[in-house]
Amino acid sequence: MAGSNAPIGVFDSGVGGLTVAREIMRQLPEERMVYFGDTARLPYGTKSKNTVIRFSRQIVRFLETKHVKAIVIACNTATACALEEIQMELALPVIGVIDAAARVAGSVTENYRIGVVGTTATIESGMYEKALRRYNEKAKVYGKACPLLVSLAEEGWLHDTITEEVVRRYLKDLQYKSIDTLILGCTHYPLLRSTFHKIAGEDVTLVNPAYEVAMELRELLTREGLSCGEDVGRAGEKYEFFVSDAAEKFCSFANSILPYDIEQVRQIDIEKFEADG
Amino acid sequence: MAGSNAPIGVFDSGVGGLTVAREIMRQLPEERMVYFGDTARLPYGTKSKNTVIRFSRQIVRFLETKHVKAIVIACNTATACALEEIQMELALPVIGVIDAAARVAGSVTENYRIGVVGTTATIESGMYEKALRRYNEKAKVYGKACPLLVSLAEEGWLHDTITEEVVRRYLKDLQYKSIDTLILGCTHYPLLRSTFHKIAGEDVTLVNPAYEVAMELRELLTREGLSCGEDVGRAGEKYEFFVSDAAEKFCSFANSILPYDIEQVRQIDIEKFEADG
Repeated sequence: MAGSNAPIGVFDSGVGGLTVAREIMRQLPEERMVYFGDTARLPYGTKSKNTVIRFSRQIVRFLETKHVKAIVIACNTATACALEEIQMELALPVIGVIDAAARVAGSVTENYRIGVVGTTATIESGMYEKALRRYNEKAKVYGKACPLLVSLAEEGWLHDTITEEVVRRYLKDLQYKSIDTLILGCTHYPLLRSTFHKIAGEDVTLVNPAYEVAMELRELLTREGLSCGEDVGRAGEKYEFFVSDAAEKFCSFANSILPYDIEQVRQIDIEKFEADG
Repeated sequence: MAGSNAPIGVFDSGVGGLTVAREIMRQLPEERMVYFGDTARLPYGTKSKNTVIRFSRQIVRFLETKHVKAIVIACNTATACALEEIQMELALPVIGVIDAAARVAGSVTENYRIGVVGTTATIESGMYEKALRRYNEKAKVYGKACPLLVSLAEEGWLHDTITEEVVRRYLKDLQYKSIDTLILGCTHYPLLRSTFHKIAGEDVTLVNPAYEVAMELRELLTREGLSCGEDVGRAGEKYEFFVSDAAEKFCSFANSILPYDIEQVRQIDIEKFEADG
């Protein structure tokens, strides 16, 4: 078992999970972190459950070589498709982004009408609905797949009339349902938060799973006696970043959203790791 | 060496190459075809050259097991990044989508100002510019990466005000250059042809590489004595489709754009094939 000073493993299909990494850096500044972004095979949101499970297993095998003490699946699609399998196969604590967000959404809704936006794979999985029912059995959950939003966020059109128009079209169905709470069920979406806020309106509470999962991680580490006992200080020593492709591009995107500048991103061949359970 | 009744191998990162497959079916109706779409790892257009070469090599290894007589790289990104390597490594004839389109564009332009739209990887490769210079040394080539258009085409928003607005924004730079010819340098873009035509205007000639590469393939097969001598007739026996993920989704997209209904799409594990040159 890795000790409490070991790093936390965080992974995503690419850069979206950096919104989760950013929250972990803010809320748990003493923790070390190893981040992996699967930039050679992104996006996951349009792919099948079995393929996402295979990819996730390979990444977990890689993170194990880094002796992580816990794993955060910082990707809604991978959480929806693979969290249960990974939890069953691993002795380490593993958490995803769905459960914490569902718990918060279930407690803040007043009219029990909750919307979820995410990738096609996340919405089709029904995992948010399943999780919400655990926390609020009266909740009615309305999902809407928004496949274009990841591309718009990666294009950098964050505050843009075209992005507003796309969000308006995607949210129309949910607005007919009179939702009072909206879960941003893809780790890219916090980058479009102000657009969502503008289109959804003042009366809809936005829930950001990136924020909530960092809170859950803190509770988990405390409960398991795994909180880091010493702060090594410099970000460059505390955080390690790995990708499966295009390290430079990842680096410049990361530097635009993280609170400090990444010095090094290393590329690895993720296909070499075992994909079978 | 495979005989003249062997199939042609055609590959793409996903469904975009079906616009090429469609042209081959129309222009060379007697030929057999094995199509592979790398749906587990799509899109290629945002990935690095080395990764696209690795993926392409694995696909070529797979097509070799099908005893194809020639290979068409039905993907602009893979052509831009990997055609030269694959041609050097293989005894079979291999063609891509760039050369034929460049030849046609070089011959139809009257003011020598040619625009190219495509993925980031295709545009950054400069391969269209290089090819155009071969056919028309006076040509000035203006490239524009349009990363959102693949997602818009896959979302099915083919005739849509949002898509028009996105195309208008991407084409603005090229219009300032007074181009009279525009190459649709991504195999998804023929699906958006009417939108490109509307925004670019009557005075701009659109060049569709999918059409041109089917013409080039016919010439190549004739020249090499590889044209199919017998038409087996039924499409279900002539064409085979393989993908690395989500066969059903591929099938329904294919059936919306091909001239006949696909009966079977088989999923294979492409990562098992050798990626080294």
